[in-house]
Amino acid sequence: MPPAGRLPKGQAHPCPIARSLDIAGQWWSMRILTDAFYGISRFDEFEKSLGIAPTVLKRRLAELVEGGLLERRAYSAKPLRYDYVLTQCGRDFWPVIVALMDWGNRHRAPEGESLVLINRATGRRVEPVMKEESSGKRITADDHILGPGPVASDHIRRRTAFGAAKRKDPALRPDFLFK
Amino acid sequence: MPPAGRLPKGQAHPCPIARSLDIAGQWWSMRILTDAFYGISRFDEFEKSLGIAPTVLKRRLAELVEGGLLERRAYSAKPLRYDYVLTQCGRDFWPVIVALMDWGNRHRAPEGESLVLINRATGRRVEPVMKEESSGKRITADDHILGPGPVASDHIRRRTAFGAAKRKDPALRPDFLFK
Repeated sequence: MPPAGRLPKGQAHPCPIARSLDIAGQWWSMRILTDAFYGISRFDEFEKSLGIAPTVLKRRLAELVEGGLLERRAYSAKPLRYDYVLTQCGRDFWPVIVALMDWGNRHRAPEGESLVLINRATGRRVEPVMKEESSGKRITADDHILGPGPVASDHIRRRTAFGAAKRKDPALRPDFLFK
Repeated sequence: MPPAGRLPKGQAHPCPIARSLDIAGQWWSMRILTDAFYGISRFDEFEKSLGIAPTVLKRRLAELVEGGLLERRAYSAKPLRYDYVLTQCGRDFWPVIVALMDWGNRHRAPEGESLVLINRATGRRVEPVMKEESSGKRITADDHILGPGPVASDHIRRRTAFGAAKRKDPALRPDFLFK
């Protein structure tokens, strides 16, 4: 469990990766979210697809709604029933899901691939790659680093500077950043 | 907790996303992995950077080594001390880390960005985007879907077909796939 902080839930850590892990670090939340991308939207559908206990499903759906990733839309008044639909915030989790699938296929699927990414227009399989938006250059751990943003805390600055010093990385010299 | 399966640890589920979640679903493992990308490699460095309890750190490092994401390299014989260094398998987690950072910056950083991605060659900030490797086309939840791979289980086929039927998606008609 992450240590508790004084900031609101989901913002207890200055690091945006840590904040995203409040969602991504939850096994069932991520599986529900993945199912939502398949188009699954109803309580009994999630239950059947995932084999999840109703009490857990109820709690996780509520958290995903509270976290802004899903929204409830009533599809029946009597009895009151909801579709759980991805919001834009939830849809923006797509690259995380795709990256997880790609890593799983590469490193945890010795028997072959159970799931692939398909371009809907062509019906063909495509390979997902993280690239720079402007240049289209592939983003790699060799060519890119995490650096302090405009509101980086002292702790984040120390952490990024530590790595930069260890790797003798000129790109993180203070006078080299944000110019 | 995920339900136990009969397959080896990390392969108890046919879905590659579920398998990746055995790593990504662990708060501390992900924070250690992120630190490793900063260049942090020694036990006391992780401890100091993350404020993590030594017992937890020891267990998580062992899991990441066992899982093939980190490898130990002795840097001192007396006393015996190790660097924990990313393997290729660990380095391949980079797109997941980058995607998590991007989502956190977009949706969990109302005060501004604490962390950004920097191109080491230019020292400039870049925006990460998931694209098709071959065409460079942006991968979106509108234009792309998860579909059954060559060794998809019946359950995965049902799940993908369910979503496709619900969305009336021609790209997942069996005769449209893998042609």
